[in-house]
Amino acid sequence: MLYAVIPAGGAGTRLWPLSRASHPKFLHALTGTSASLIQATVGRLGGLTSPDTTMVVTGASHAADVARQLPDLPAENVLVEPLPRDSCAAIGLAAAVIAEREPEAVMGAFPADHLITDVQAFQACVLAGVSGALAGKLMTIGITPTRPETGYGYLRCTSDEGQVREVAEFVEKPDKERAAAYLQSGEYLWNAGMFIWRVDAFLAELARQQPELHDGLRRIAAAWHGPRRDDRMAEIWPDLKKISIDYAVMEGAAAQGLVGTVPGEFGWNDVGDFHTLGDILPGDEQGNVVLAADDAKGEVVLRDSEGVIVVPRSGRLIAAVGLRDAVIVDTEDALLVCPRDRAQEVKAIVDGLKERGATDLL
Amino acid sequence: MLYAVIPAGGAGTRLWPLSRASHPKFLHALTGTSASLIQATVGRLGGLTSPDTTMVVTGASHAADVARQLPDLPAENVLVEPLPRDSCAAIGLAAAVIAEREPEAVMGAFPADHLITDVQAFQACVLAGVSGALAGKLMTIGITPTRPETGYGYLRCTSDEGQVREVAEFVEKPDKERAAAYLQSGEYLWNAGMFIWRVDAFLAELARQQPELHDGLRRIAAAWHGPRRDDRMAEIWPDLKKISIDYAVMEGAAAQGLVGTVPGEFGWNDVGDFHTLGDILPGDEQGNVVLAADDAKGEVVLRDSEGVIVVPRSGRLIAAVGLRDAVIVDTEDALLVCPRDRAQEVKAIVDGLKERGATDLL
Repeated sequence: MLYAVIPAGGAGTRLWPLSRASHPKFLHALTGTSASLIQATVGRLGGLTSPDTTMVVTGASHAADVARQLPDLPAENVLVEPLPRDSCAAIGLAAAVIAEREPEAVMGAFPADHLITDVQAFQACVLAGVSGALAGKLMTIGITPTRPETGYGYLRCTSDEGQVREVAEFVEKPDKERAAAYLQSGEYLWNAGMFIWRVDAFLAELARQQPELHDGLRRIAAAWHGPRRDDRMAEIWPDLKKISIDYAVMEGAAAQGLVGTVPGEFGWNDVGDFHTLGDILPGDEQGNVVLAADDAKGEVVLRDSEGVIVVPRSGRLIAAVGLRDAVIVDTEDALLVCPRDRAQEVKAIVDGLKERGATDLL
Repeated sequence: MLYAVIPAGGAGTRLWPLSRASHPKFLHALTGTSASLIQATVGRLGGLTSPDTTMVVTGASHAADVARQLPDLPAENVLVEPLPRDSCAAIGLAAAVIAEREPEAVMGAFPADHLITDVQAFQACVLAGVSGALAGKLMTIGITPTRPETGYGYLRCTSDEGQVREVAEFVEKPDKERAAAYLQSGEYLWNAGMFIWRVDAFLAELARQQPELHDGLRRIAAAWHGPRRDDRMAEIWPDLKKISIDYAVMEGAAAQGLVGTVPGEFGWNDVGDFHTLGDILPGDEQGNVVLAADDAKGEVVLRDSEGVIVVPRSGRLIAAVGLRDAVIVDTEDALLVCPRDRAQEVKAIVDGLKERGATDLL
């Protein structure tokens, strides 16, 4: 049985005004169904795990929403970060807590805010990753690139073929030219932040590279199932090193030949902005995508419009005439309209709101 | 002193979702100031008339709003049509009521839903029209065409020059080719539905061409200032002929050489749709026009956008990035987004709502 760890953080600024600090993107139904992203993340693991062996690591302000959206999850499996301490502390805490229960367990980390359309292909990759993990490797699932993307980090593999490959190094986000060369070579995969390993193998690398962080997490985990959990957290967590898991562990492990990867092709999308979301979700004959919430009452009337992405969340009628490739996000207190190819710039709007202290809209 | 008659009818379907059957366009602040169109219509008559000599003719469902928006108007000057009976009955009733007070008074009819930017030039035209009216003519104010418009009727003049001209005939909305020829010739003016005449001269023509309509209106007017007003209205009004004033009186009067016109160039706009509205109102440096209501709380953030017309009426934040020549109309229960050059097609949305019986949105 696989332990599944779901890191649930990140505001999803480029999905404003839907995604807010108080209700970030993983809590929203951006899947084309009534499931939220985090519900879909748990759901697509299907028979590979169970509620008892599924853990979410999330911020204090989202714990209640997570608990309600995943009612089958035991309460102690919602790991609440009192303060954000980046991905190494978050994933490392889960690994340490799992190790308390089962020291040689295999765990996979699957971010709460990704979309995957081909669940069967995804599960096959996870199973291949588990094989590598059982052999002692720190495995990742890498995404076979489909375009020269400059927004992601890459994994450089030692080969351009094979269902399981060795990772030579973790590569930063490239410029356009490099991204094109990476795509061409076939040796590079997108780093999607999905990991699979035996917790003992991971914790050994953590102890080697980040001994203080390792010891702190171990001490918290030792108290996890007893009465001193909160005290330990309060005492240790705030002083833990803020560092990403790639910097803290994976790069060093790759240099030691300890990291493997499974190239995945399963319709992966990190739901970065409304434009890319519209590319992956099924639309009508004109390519219009309406992302209605489960309890949506409002209607959407699109007349002679193509490639329009509508997110109706206010219950009002939304009418458009003659629109092409536009985004309309309609919430109770804010409306966004932009061309699809400008959807990334929504971040600038949010930055402007921050500067002005318009916190109720963030 | 000029009697001013303000016909206040018409739903303004192409201004949906702002303009509604229950709150049509003349009640809205579409002037670039906090004044509604009807308030601006009364306001621009300035010293030419007074509240005592200003009358509004409107439907029963708008009487209360009109009375509140024009608090200085005596109550008996709000002429309420129990049922719509087209423009000849509406304007004719006002003429007959004025004739009861002052049989040789000069009245002008100025529709409640037009925008005029150069008030001084407008007033000069009105005064020129009054001169013609005092000489016994049925005067109109014609608009000097600025484009080959196919959406208006035209006045064919007997000359292409002069501050006052004779109107040879009223011409229907032309096709593109004819409209271009009209523009070229200089002999054609747009028929803007603005009239100035001595009420005795108008009523004589009405009696000659529409004797039944004339007699009915005269009988209602005779009872206007007494206790039998409502009875007379109920008895006579519903059976009055439904006919426009152009068909009923003006075309026949023109054939008799009785109609004159004053060509006007004063930034006239009939507020037909949001596109043309955006052309006439002052925008920011990028040509964006925000039509905020007086009590608007919501904010509009336009980032790298040009030529966008925003009508914020819900109090929400409206944010746009990278938009060009678009229309955003944001009301409590409905949102419209379209390119400016498709703004006329909003009517099709409204027709669709009618077909489906979505009366609360009309």
